[in-house]
Amino acid sequence: MSQLQNDRFLRALLREPVDRTPVWIMRQAGRYLPEYREVRAQAGSFMDLCRNAELACEVTMQPLRRFDLDAAILFSDILTVPDAMGLGLYFEPGEGPRFERPLRDTAAINALPVPDVATSLRYVTDAVSRIRRELNGTVPLIGFSGSPWTLATYMVEGASSKDFRHIKALAYDQPALLEQLLDKTARAVIDYLNAQVEAGAQALMIFDTWGGALAHDAYERFSLAFARQVIDGLVRERDGRRIPVVFFTKGGGLWLERIADCGADGLGIDWTLSLTEARRRVGGRVALQGNLDPSVLYASPEVIHREVGRVLAEFGHGSGHVFNLGHGVHPQIPPDHVAAMVEAVHALSPRYHD
Amino acid sequence: MSQLQNDRFLRALLREPVDRTPVWIMRQAGRYLPEYREVRAQAGSFMDLCRNAELACEVTMQPLRRFDLDAAILFSDILTVPDAMGLGLYFEPGEGPRFERPLRDTAAINALPVPDVATSLRYVTDAVSRIRRELNGTVPLIGFSGSPWTLATYMVEGASSKDFRHIKALAYDQPALLEQLLDKTARAVIDYLNAQVEAGAQALMIFDTWGGALAHDAYERFSLAFARQVIDGLVRERDGRRIPVVFFTKGGGLWLERIADCGADGLGIDWTLSLTEARRRVGGRVALQGNLDPSVLYASPEVIHREVGRVLAEFGHGSGHVFNLGHGVHPQIPPDHVAAMVEAVHALSPRYHD
Repeated sequence: MSQLQNDRFLRALLREPVDRTPVWIMRQAGRYLPEYREVRAQAGSFMDLCRNAELACEVTMQPLRRFDLDAAILFSDILTVPDAMGLGLYFEPGEGPRFERPLRDTAAINALPVPDVATSLRYVTDAVSRIRRELNGTVPLIGFSGSPWTLATYMVEGASSKDFRHIKALAYDQPALLEQLLDKTARAVIDYLNAQVEAGAQALMIFDTWGGALAHDAYERFSLAFARQVIDGLVRERDGRRIPVVFFTKGGGLWLERIADCGADGLGIDWTLSLTEARRRVGGRVALQGNLDPSVLYASPEVIHREVGRVLAEFGHGSGHVFNLGHGVHPQIPPDHVAAMVEAVHALSPRYHD
Repeated sequence: MSQLQNDRFLRALLREPVDRTPVWIMRQAGRYLPEYREVRAQAGSFMDLCRNAELACEVTMQPLRRFDLDAAILFSDILTVPDAMGLGLYFEPGEGPRFERPLRDTAAINALPVPDVATSLRYVTDAVSRIRRELNGTVPLIGFSGSPWTLATYMVEGASSKDFRHIKALAYDQPALLEQLLDKTARAVIDYLNAQVEAGAQALMIFDTWGGALAHDAYERFSLAFARQVIDGLVRERDGRRIPVVFFTKGGGLWLERIADCGADGLGIDWTLSLTEARRRVGGRVALQGNLDPSVLYASPEVIHREVGRVLAEFGHGSGHVFNLGHGVHPQIPPDHVAAMVEAVHALSPRYHD
């Protein structure tokens, strides 16, 4: 593998000095880019695109050609693991992901296999290897997975949910059964993420998109505990270099002190709290990634520039900040507005690193 | 008006001694009750039901016949005020509320009238008077409105929204114009809530359903500031008795210290933080209302009993707690499970008031 030319992202996650704040964007390869929509149309279904290593590599590279970003992220779906467990992932147009066989009883949960990643998720590790070669050392590659809790919500509900009716009934009525499902899912996620590292991923991100839907104590028991299990099981060094892990519970700001103990190097932060407060509350134990409100990108480039400056100032001086949105970029955002955001980070962040 | 026989709810909001923790349920008159669905089917549209004082009174009374609750709440919609401002409220089956004429430019916002509540919202105050007579002093009647920010999200988006694209673009690009809209809406809400008190409401609740979607500083500027303006404008005493006000920002747990200064007597609390922590953070300045996860009601009556006990214990000893869910009761909940919750509050709460 070629020498990494830009390691700002990895250094910031380890709170080592950098010349400016690194920046990447959640869902940076996605529908807001016309070139993505073109490849997507030609690929067939969304999962066809994920399963085609050449096209997955192509869409991963697209945002890096437009914007001077400090990291690439594997193009894939968060639900590949439950799909490999045999639940039958598919997408209804305009409806989000669905499973053909959601888990609704003890027998189904007991029967669930831990998948053999080497075979069933080979299409993901193939894409990782290919992207890593294509990147050729320009920027590091981030691998990722959904958190056990977030995966389990889809596995039990069978689709996106507003009220999490089935999985919460399970959590309250049969907590040990849900823990069994989460443990099995955590073991699969560990294998999956380690296989991504083996294939070339240089950092890992765990998306806990639905942790914030839980009550405070249920969050600790059903989301945080299994995120910790995953992080404990990960390979953290390769070729003499640390593989940093970022954990992101959307809507988890209230629980930040406890999340900071999960073993991750960095935490994703949404836009509901200032990085000043987040930094104070984690007390230098972890780096922070975020946290511009994605809706700021609907505003004018001047406003975007000002709001980027506000986020940088809220984190303040020193390393330990990876600039990002507080959630994925929305499909309707003009790419020029994303460019304005990236340029503002470049222009305004060096002053915090002298 | 007849003498109030059960004033636990009002006393708890003023942190005066009570014999047990009062309980009511957000959306207690609603689709989970078969008798509600019957009246709803006979009324025509949802707004036809709201506009018919006799039927609105009937559905308000329904949950009180089933459960021993400590308050009634006016049956109406949170969007009556923008409807009275001429935006044309209607409901698409399964889609939630919509406006025929959303506010999308300066001219539309400038042209927006502050409605004459006495005429355009007469159907609401008629319902309040009728319900108050029908209650005949058994329990107090809560009037309510959406917060200016929450009303404005619907007025600008024209419907429920996941990303609040249009109103957030307005907030970031033209904040003074949005403040003008919020000020106008706040003045209408003041007139509306004071008219409800005039007609017989004995407490008021302001629902800030979408405040939690805002970035921390935007929340203060666009939601909290205008909630405070409303509360400052309310009649707070009638017939020698305090009219308590409850303010509820769903997803506002991170900002609780600042919300506690809004002038309300009580704050609604969702299920993402424990009442122990909430009580400590508000420091005895306000009462707290909540905060059982509505999804607990999918679980068995035994689990419901245990979880009610946990919420009561988290608040602990003394007055200042109104038991409720952390959000409205879901339409699929069996009424028997609601009964189990109410009975558990009756059985378990007296020990905290000796």
